[in-house]
Amino acid sequence: MEPGPLSRPAEPGICVSGSPGAGSAFPASLRSGAGAEPGSRPGTVAAVLPAGGCGERMGVRTPKQFCRVLERPLISYTLQALERVCWIKDIVVAVTAENMEAMRSILQRYGHKRTSLAEAGATRHRSIFNGLKALAEDRPDVVIVHDAVRPFVEEDILLRVVTAAKEHGAAGAIRPLVSTVISPSADGRLEHSLDRAKHRASEMPQAFLFDVIYKAYQQCSDYDFEFGTECLQLALKYSHTKAKLVEGPPDLWKVTYKRDLQAAESVIKEKISQEICVVMNTKDEESAGHLLKEVLKKELNCVNVTSTVLDHTGGNVQKFPTDQCYSFICVNVVSSDFQETQKFLSILEESGLPLLYPVVVVLVHCCDLTLAPLAPKMESLMWIRSLAEDMKKRNVLLSGLLLNYSKDEQKLQESFQQGASIIAALVKERSSALAGQLLLA
Amino acid sequence: MEPGPLSRPAEPGICVSGSPGAGSAFPASLRSGAGAEPGSRPGTVAAVLPAGGCGERMGVRTPKQFCRVLERPLISYTLQALERVCWIKDIVVAVTAENMEAMRSILQRYGHKRTSLAEAGATRHRSIFNGLKALAEDRPDVVIVHDAVRPFVEEDILLRVVTAAKEHGAAGAIRPLVSTVISPSADGRLEHSLDRAKHRASEMPQAFLFDVIYKAYQQCSDYDFEFGTECLQLALKYSHTKAKLVEGPPDLWKVTYKRDLQAAESVIKEKISQEICVVMNTKDEESAGHLLKEVLKKELNCVNVTSTVLDHTGGNVQKFPTDQCYSFICVNVVSSDFQETQKFLSILEESGLPLLYPVVVVLVHCCDLTLAPLAPKMESLMWIRSLAEDMKKRNVLLSGLLLNYSKDEQKLQESFQQGASIIAALVKERSSALAGQLLLA
Repeated sequence: MEPGPLSRPAEPGICVSGSPGAGSAFPASLRSGAGAEPGSRPGTVAAVLPAGGCGERMGVRTPKQFCRVLERPLISYTLQALERVCWIKDIVVAVTAENMEAMRSILQRYGHKRTSLAEAGATRHRSIFNGLKALAEDRPDVVIVHDAVRPFVEEDILLRVVTAAKEHGAAGAIRPLVSTVISPSADGRLEHSLDRAKHRASEMPQAFLFDVIYKAYQQCSDYDFEFGTECLQLALKYSHTKAKLVEGPPDLWKVTYKRDLQAAESVIKEKISQEICVVMNTKDEESAGHLLKEVLKKELNCVNVTSTVLDHTGGNVQKFPTDQCYSFICVNVVSSDFQETQKFLSILEESGLPLLYPVVVVLVHCCDLTLAPLAPKMESLMWIRSLAEDMKKRNVLLSGLLLNYSKDEQKLQESFQQGASIIAALVKERSSALAGQLLLA
Repeated sequence: MEPGPLSRPAEPGICVSGSPGAGSAFPASLRSGAGAEPGSRPGTVAAVLPAGGCGERMGVRTPKQFCRVLERPLISYTLQALERVCWIKDIVVAVTAENMEAMRSILQRYGHKRTSLAEAGATRHRSIFNGLKALAEDRPDVVIVHDAVRPFVEEDILLRVVTAAKEHGAAGAIRPLVSTVISPSADGRLEHSLDRAKHRASEMPQAFLFDVIYKAYQQCSDYDFEFGTECLQLALKYSHTKAKLVEGPPDLWKVTYKRDLQAAESVIKEKISQEICVVMNTKDEESAGHLLKEVLKKELNCVNVTSTVLDHTGGNVQKFPTDQCYSFICVNVVSSDFQETQKFLSILEESGLPLLYPVVVVLVHCCDLTLAPLAPKMESLMWIRSLAEDMKKRNVLLSGLLLNYSKDEQKLQESFQQGASIIAALVKERSSALAGQLLLA
């Protein structure tokens, strides 16, 4: 399929930190980080994700890294987060033999081009070691260890742990404790409780000079491999490297329980609903599209509402937001014309946007219902239903909104406000069951 | 307002553990618990909830216990969870002077009749102590300390900590650690990491013999009041009581971050969507209502789908599920008749159901759209819109569903399946913006 004018790579790893070309993509802090030898070449960075776990705490049969959030496996979100960072050159995921094929098809379907696979071991540490072995041949200077089930990792914290690892040999993200930690006696009684202020939860990501962590794993005992939980501890024990601890943001949390999966879905839905694009066919500031845009801005005050003018030749679509916008409100421009709508939808599809997230498209049709009765209007828009059925399979959630464009100023305001609430609900919920419906405001 | 036939106390404290009469309501394990003196009278149990916190970790201005979930403050869910347990006689919430009035109106609005208020202190421990002082006059044998922001506490764990407290003087719920706990040195480097298997997170609820905890607080130093976090530790230090630690379920988690609030909303939505009642006007098993019920059962396999027959006199409504059902699918019975619908809705309202949770009502109208054209049908059902507007204010989310009752068996199946998906989405999302819409399957 030839990419349309709204071109955007299907690959999720759009580099947010600059072009992926060698030196320039590398953050200055890594090129000349404190502790790095003067004139040393910028180090290469890779990442290892152990993903062999079985998710027993989740209470579901699917391992949690493969649980679907908005139809996409959780691990793909984590890979996307890492691939957005240009200076991470390779990512190795360690998966069990039985999940290898499924994982391969996830990599292909969601375009994770910088990720390769290694076989997971029986424990987390064996999986990480296998991942490191896969990198050993063309070994990076620094390796990040991250969890497949922490999808919300940002470049900032990755950069901070990598920079600290370059300086100190090892580094890891920490968070304040939410609960007091206590140590029970053998008979389940309180022995003592730890001073919460003096302790921290060890989270991910962690980063190591490759030699530090690789050497540690090479010396590891079977006991460490079986029962150890903390890579930083291994670096301390076997490579005598005292890791630097870096305070991380709250969104590093690990998807552990079913409620975490629900929280992850809410967080992702919120993230992809931060931008709404109003598509219209006129620059006239008195037009319905502009009015709706203003109401949306006022009603959804945390959302960035942009607009673009789509002329009938479809020539103007380059002005579309090309990233991070997954919600399109088309006012009049295409809602009355099947072919125009189809053209718009193919451009959208070719852009690759629906590959990663369900895209919401609301076709708004404004008409004065006191002049034109509602029923025939709805009847004439029934084609939206069958088109929506088709688009749903392509991850585009299409629905229609009839907006009563009354001459009565107050009624008009009410309609716009109700319309904005309906749009907000469609954008926020992304419910595929409601695609194809004709709503009324 | 006189309660209708579908009578149910507006008070959320429906005792799930038996009638609230003295002895009988008290679980046998508390009446003759191991360690209780033989022949001792069943102890009285009260609870203290410190709710003076400011929720700084949430990143929002409203203290987290007052954040709204489905329009109701979080603390009301926690109170509801405690009031459902008959043998908890009194609940004292410690709130700051500035939130006292707001809290009082929460108690009244949501019918928390067993709850009274005390003034919060400057720290969590001072608030708990104030709560205990409020109970001291008519002092209970055992006092539960719980967090206002742990709304999902079940009777089972409450009973287990109370029973253990009767035996050991103090008891608290614990959970396995999700992250390794580490202790940083002064310069932020790793000193050592704790063996995860040997430590636990201390959670809530906790329970104490009243004298044990009251005595501990009376001897507390200012330092303890300011910086202490763990009540169990105070009981150990000042009352020489080694608390029994009880493994609790994962749903004891504390709403700490914004994502926890989102998770809480998902959990609550899921809980109240576990039961759907199909209301119909015929027992005929070939009727649309029965067919829809069967499809709903098959499609939503985790949901309990019940049905009830509502005759035209409204006399049969006693058969309604009277608890835990917040979703009603009315098939044909009332969807074509405005007055019938209003009668049904007033019964629903008088039941008190919408007081605690938004109730979803879907009016399903079946008709063969090849025989009767769609448009006039929709036009004739427009009264649902204005009625829905009104009902929304009363926490009832009303919408209409036109189901194509085709003679073609395959088309009919498709309609039913699409209808079931739409119903599932309406029940699950409870979106007030979509109330009043006429949907089509």
